[in-house]
Amino acid sequence: EHNDAIDFSNRGMTLEDEINKSNTYYLNNGIAVIHKKPTPIQIVSVDYPKRSAARINEAYFRRSSTTDYNGVYKGRYIDFDAKETKNRTSFPLKNFHKHQVEHMRQCLKQQGICFAVIKFVNDQSVFVLKATTLIDYWDNQDSGGRKSIPRKVIEETGFLVPYRINPLLPYLRAVDSIID
Amino acid sequence: EHNDAIDFSNRGMTLEDEINKSNTYYLNNGIAVIHKKPTPIQIVSVDYPKRSAARINEAYFRRSSTTDYNGVYKGRYIDFDAKETKNRTSFPLKNFHKHQVEHMRQCLKQQGICFAVIKFVNDQSVFVLKATTLIDYWDNQDSGGRKSIPRKVIEETGFLVPYRINPLLPYLRAVDSIID
Ligand SMILES: [Mg+2]
Ligand SMILES: [Mg+2]
Repeated sequence: EHNDAIDFSNRGMTLEDEINKSNTYYLNNGIAVIHKKPTPIQIVSVDYPKRSAARINEAYFRRSSTTDYNGVYKGRYIDFDAKETKNRTSFPLKNFHKHQVEHMRQCLKQQGICFAVIKFVNDQSVFVLKATTLIDYWDNQDSGGRKSIPRKVIEETGFLVPYRINPLLPYLRAVDSIID
Repeated sequence: EHNDAIDFSNRGMTLEDEINKSNTYYLNNGIAVIHKKPTPIQIVSVDYPKRSAARINEAYFRRSSTTDYNGVYKGRYIDFDAKETKNRTSFPLKNFHKHQVEHMRQCLKQQGICFAVIKFVNDQSVFVLKATTLIDYWDNQDSGGRKSIPRKVIEETGFLVPYRINPLLPYLRAVDSIID
């Protein structure tokens, strides 16, 4: 019971919750402006009642053609997606959609800073992995390459993001390493 | 009738349609990666039928806390909103929400390139106006300043964006002037 009391307050949070919380810290402290994009929705039917707000009666989730997060940090364009995996030894590439990878490729071409934030939920370790590494593995799938990135590769080429109090996930430190 | 045939194909398009079309051109030609963010929706109730897609049964539109467009161009973070007005002689500041202006202020602090694309629908003229000018007028409202930006000021301090074939609205040329 004493252990429960000092438990991480982030227990039960999704990686996106953790990143959103960190982004709020970065925003409130004037460090970066990074937001999660709203989920794209296809609206089929809307009612406009006279004295109240428009009500959507039928709509469907659409797949995004970009990544979930973007914004600005030190004048640089930041673009990334957050992915959790229950795998222990590798990150399955099927966690990404083709459109997301193409979007990262396009942003890199414009000198954007692109990466993935990957969380191994098994041991709660979080890494920032450069989009270039992700794209290398992605492209190699077609020529008989493996369908996942070994955790070892993520540890060696990526940047571990240790949990802190504020921001909860200081992932922009890893971004500093990418920018330099 | 002959005149109709050579009419602008953009007749009847909203400013957002025109910008989206231009962004597609910029994307397909490797010039910039700029997307409109999805409309934020508050979802209240969803059905998960067995053999078909999740169906949203009740949802409401939320007001965005950011601008509508962002992306990357020449390594720079681009952030803007598109606004139409039927006014002829000025642009009413009430077209902006407080949150949008605060968002622009935050992005400017991170050295983002922030502006508004303003269309006077009366004569179909489109201008890029720097966020700094917009913010000056916005802040002056509280100290007895006017509630709109005179068109003359927009003409003199902003950049006219003439319609072209491709891209329909070459607004990034104006952005070049802001960057330089
Ligand atoms: Mg995601
Ligand atoms: Mg707008």
